[in-house]
Amino acid sequence: MPELPELLAANERYAASFTKGGLPMPPARHVAVLACMDARLHPEKFLGLEEGDAHVIRNAGGRASDDALRSLIISYKLLGTREFVVIHHTDCGMLTFSNDQIREMLKNDTGADASAIDFLPFSDLEASVREDVQTIRSSPLIPDDITVTGFVFDVKTGRLSEVS
Amino acid sequence: MPELPELLAANERYAASFTKGGLPMPPARHVAVLACMDARLHPEKFLGLEEGDAHVIRNAGGRASDDALRSLIISYKLLGTREFVVIHHTDCGMLTFSNDQIREMLKNDTGADASAIDFLPFSDLEASVREDVQTIRSSPLIPDDITVTGFVFDVKTGRLSEVS
Repeated sequence: MPELPELLAANERYAASFTKGGLPMPPARHVAVLACMDARLHPEKFLGLEEGDAHVIRNAGGRASDDALRSLIISYKLLGTREFVVIHHTDCGMLTFSNDQIREMLKNDTGADASAIDFLPFSDLEASVREDVQTIRSSPLIPDDITVTGFVFDVKTGRLSEVS
Repeated sequence: MPELPELLAANERYAASFTKGGLPMPPARHVAVLACMDARLHPEKFLGLEEGDAHVIRNAGGRASDDALRSLIISYKLLGTREFVVIHHTDCGMLTFSNDQIREMLKNDTGADASAIDFLPFSDLEASVREDVQTIRSSPLIPDDITVTGFVFDVKTGRLSEVS
């Protein structure tokens, strides 16, 4: 059964009681969050963010990919964010495969060649957070006065732990 | 004033009443959403998604960038999603600048060269949705039986409109 009809019915309910129609484009709290796409993470909910508060960038792993850097640059340069928060999490799918494994699966199932794609898996969760924080901090396109902190979200407890 | 302490205090409150600690990794509703990072969009809230329901991928514009495709491939191939939903929105920042303009700002302010980066701005909102839906549908690494639909979220009303 497709889920889309139920998603759109939920959106109708949301719109029917919507009161946030006058918010400006720049995030009110000057924060940008970079987090994993994992379904168990609802960053706005677990950080107490309301509509209009913060940019939320998400991808597989919450990695500081070139595209995440593109988004973070637009976030601070055009829309005034000053704090970046990187969030990976326990039990992440990115800990469960290698580039070679997923490329082989794709080759077998679709016939297409994914050898040019780095899927950005990792084997050490805390090291992956440190690496991504460092990638952002060391970008020549991101000024040093933007703070960048990194966290692990525990999917069993809902709690963030800072990675230093 | 840094916002991080208040974000972490909100996370403590979330964790204190957390009851979703036993959810599996694959999204229960087999959906992946690709949406803009804009602060006014809370996709889980406006689609009625609970923790564990769906992957949520977000970047500047909600574009089908190479990194979004990386995430969507991981989403379906390793974690079983079957429906992709692309969501751009009215009053998007991506409608307000050109690559040349942001590259010039970055050059002036940081001295760094961003000429190799396509920031993926657009001038026609509905066309940008169609383009991104088509990019995903035409990827040889994404099977044809995954449905891909595109929407515009109206930041004044909270309502989604399908782009066909």
